[in-house]
Amino acid sequence: MKFSQTHLLGIEDLHPLEITMLLDRANVHAEAERGSRQHGQPLKGLTQINMFFEASTRTQASFEIAGKRLGADVMNMAMAASSLKKGETLIDTALTLNAMHPDLLVVRHPHSGAVKLLADKVNCAVLNAGDGRHEHPTQALLDALTIKRAKGRIHRLVIAICGDIAHSRVARSNIHLLGKMENRIRLIGPPTLIPAGAAEWGVEVYGDMAEGLKGADVVMMLRLQKERMDGAFIPSEREYFHRFGLNAEKLAHAKSDAIVMHPGPMNRGVEIDGTIADDINRSVIQEQVEMGVAVRMAAMELLAENLRERREKGAP
Amino acid sequence: MKFSQTHLLGIEDLHPLEITMLLDRANVHAEAERGSRQHGQPLKGLTQINMFFEASTRTQASFEIAGKRLGADVMNMAMAASSLKKGETLIDTALTLNAMHPDLLVVRHPHSGAVKLLADKVNCAVLNAGDGRHEHPTQALLDALTIKRAKGRIHRLVIAICGDIAHSRVARSNIHLLGKMENRIRLIGPPTLIPAGAAEWGVEVYGDMAEGLKGADVVMMLRLQKERMDGAFIPSEREYFHRFGLNAEKLAHAKSDAIVMHPGPMNRGVEIDGTIADDINRSVIQEQVEMGVAVRMAAMELLAENLRERREKGAP
Amino acid sequence: MKFSQTHLLGIEDLHPLEITMLLDRANVHAEAERGSRQHGQPLKGLTQINMFFEASTRTQASFEIAGKRLGADVMNMAMAASSLKKGETLIDTALTLNAMHPDLLVVRHPHSGAVKLLADKVNCAVLNAGDGRHEHPTQALLDALTIKRAKGRIHRLVIAICGDIAHSRVARSNIHLLGKMENRIRLIGPPTLIPAGAAEWGVEVYGDMAEGLKGADVVMMLRLQKERMDGAFIPSEREYFHRFGLNAEKLAHAKSDAIVMHPGPMNRGVEIDGTIADDINRSVIQEQVEMGVAVRMAAMELLAENLRERREKGAP
Repeated sequence: MKFSQTHLLGIEDLHPLEITMLLDRANVHAEAERGSRQHGQPLKGLTQINMFFEASTRTQASFEIAGKRLGADVMNMAMAASSLKKGETLIDTALTLNAMHPDLLVVRHPHSGAVKLLADKVNCAVLNAGDGRHEHPTQALLDALTIKRAKGRIHRLVIAICGDIAHSRVARSNIHLLGKMENRIRLIGPPTLIPAGAAEWGVEVYGDMAEGLKGADVVMMLRLQKERMDGAFIPSEREYFHRFGLNAEKLAHAKSDAIVMHPGPMNRGVEIDGTIADDINRSVIQEQVEMGVAVRMAAMELLAENLRERREKGAP
Repeated sequence: MKFSQTHLLGIEDLHPLEITMLLDRANVHAEAERGSRQHGQPLKGLTQINMFFEASTRTQASFEIAGKRLGADVMNMAMAASSLKKGETLIDTALTLNAMHPDLLVVRHPHSGAVKLLADKVNCAVLNAGDGRHEHPTQALLDALTIKRAKGRIHRLVIAICGDIAHSRVARSNIHLLGKMENRIRLIGPPTLIPAGAAEWGVEVYGDMAEGLKGADVVMMLRLQKERMDGAFIPSEREYFHRFGLNAEKLAHAKSDAIVMHPGPMNRGVEIDGTIADDINRSVIQEQVEMGVAVRMAAMELLAENLRERREKGAP
Repeated sequence: MKFSQTHLLGIEDLHPLEITMLLDRANVHAEAERGSRQHGQPLKGLTQINMFFEASTRTQASFEIAGKRLGADVMNMAMAASSLKKGETLIDTALTLNAMHPDLLVVRHPHSGAVKLLADKVNCAVLNAGDGRHEHPTQALLDALTIKRAKGRIHRLVIAICGDIAHSRVARSNIHLLGKMENRIRLIGPPTLIPAGAAEWGVEVYGDMAEGLKGADVVMMLRLQKERMDGAFIPSEREYFHRFGLNAEKLAHAKSDAIVMHPGPMNRGVEIDGTIADDINRSVIQEQVEMGVAVRMAAMELLAENLRERREKGAP
């Protein structure tokens, strides 16, 4: 079996073996980053364009570093300040960039499905860097790699995903990935932040941290996305922290060697206590960021290999 | 004869043979882009700075890709968020950048003549990426290359330029170029959008699409620059589309093999019907974008050759 | 003795011999810039991240050019449009970037001490590109190199720093550097723009340009930082120019071969007369910018050498 994708749009499209392949490749890059820092130049001569229709320091920087260290020419396009203002449609923007022969397009967009729409129109490899509430596949992959390195495996674990599930593409991609790898997934949060259909996703739903964390190997906190609440009732930050914020007391319900994760950026004192976030015996939050670069390297490398193959066969 | 320019400020300054030379060189790059994607590294070791005093996704991306694929170090400077805020003059900005020894300065500015002003103060090569209503030379060159590839020649053609001529530096540069190459140029638009002196430019002026498009080889639509209308009377978009928007019915007046062009970004349903824009049998709009990269490669390469020659002779 | 710094946070931390070493190295790069433009690629394979929490065209461009010409992969992060908006702290941002294994972090921040705070958290080399009213070390170094090239030495000179001392990190870094090198420093400005404790810094304070400039070798003008005045009484610009703006008449009080400096961007007609600024017999303002690139090359190169040494010894 080989990694046969043209794009990386979501975890939903990936075969478990493709996930494993991607994580293995990423781990090689992760080790190189810590050691020789030599990756060869597998993206040499290729043009990577980062199109972020939503600003994101960390994700854009991670893709940019990954591309540059593998030898790509990387361009950032801040799409808000762009010709979209002049009334150009997303598709016209995609066709325009496509005509400039890019090789890798990294796209973040506020609307679910927008990245797929764009991918259908271009003849290069597209990576979804987050689309609306839909998917954020490289985040789920970097989470998986972090878990695998900490726990030695990425299956048969009890993983609790806590907080604002409803607005989170991170949660959605993680649920796909962890489910495919046969883990036991628990969602913990207030009813207003758990999607209505969640019970049918093959997960367990909890409204109480103490109960939900019991026996967990991995505690994955989510950012409270205040900017997306649009009117929905949410408790005050203080009340939220009291009930769902991770602190030492709540963490004590998980396994004694449970790891703590957060996709960042954190709201310290809202969804997570700063002391837990900084505790290097429990928190793998910095390693998540580190693995992010490695996972993006692997994803772009594998997609570029497929792209070159398609082109050699005469694809446009 | 050789390409003897120090800067590329406007088509007005170019000899017809220089235009031909530039288009021939660009065509070599265009073919390489479609095939091997190898261009050598003629700009290796050179610093290209894109100074855009007006935002422009597509033009800036095109220059950036062109420069990077030829090996240049490319820097983008968003000039609005810059020291101009602190009251620095355009000239001081130019002198400051010049002191950092750039090789190629790509400048877009809202004021006609600003790029020339700047070019007079620096000792590197300056490319005009659009100055006010004055010129946008690389757009005219990419249009010419697109026409040449579609029609086999860039002379003795009937070319209709339609719409908002008054606010268009694209129209102005195209009129210069197409006139130098001995084509028959027609301007079509409402009287409020045709400049007063147009009749003296060696062009024919029409107020009616059916009449103006009769027998045309090339139909070049312009973007309706609503943001520059400052109070001038214009019809509603609906009325405008009815009278001047290109659709199948109006296009039927042109030659049966006439090509349709648009510099982008398009206002679909205002100056052009979406179906026409997407009709790959008539529209060369995506090829225009593609030729944009090739033309900018050629222009920077030729100017860099001249720059190196001047420096070898001891110029600063 | 060797250059033993891990970071470049301020001139205050540098030994006079380290300053000399840095200036000598910078001068080699300055000469290469004027000639062969070959610098080797001492930063090849390293990642430089420019984090500017305050916009600055010239300083950021200077660091970017310096890094790229030495072979670094350079990334710019506009921190205002960043995840700081989402409530992330400066420290979390630093830790996040640090986890991506950068080598050189160039940081500008509106708060004094913020760059040091950040440097304490990361394991790469940090360069202060200006923090609040505290320090701007590369500016002082480029000023010193400019003076040394013009005057043949950087000690035992009479140097007048004129204008808005109170809000100026440039003044502060220059006072440190010029004091360490045993020059005679004079501060000239209205009492409201001279810090209260200035008399204890080993400088002479003047309220009158004619007096203060008498016998000066170097006249260093500062920008009137109107945006930082927050309510303090200042004279009108006209009145300010009359009393403290440099013009030919006031300059006549300095030595006949005195040079005129300004860190830019200039307010022409406020702190300096345009004619003086442009007088190539007196003004070295363009050369300051030129030396800026050279000094930043040298600083990054020396810090990178130390970083590599620490890593070879097994530092993280």
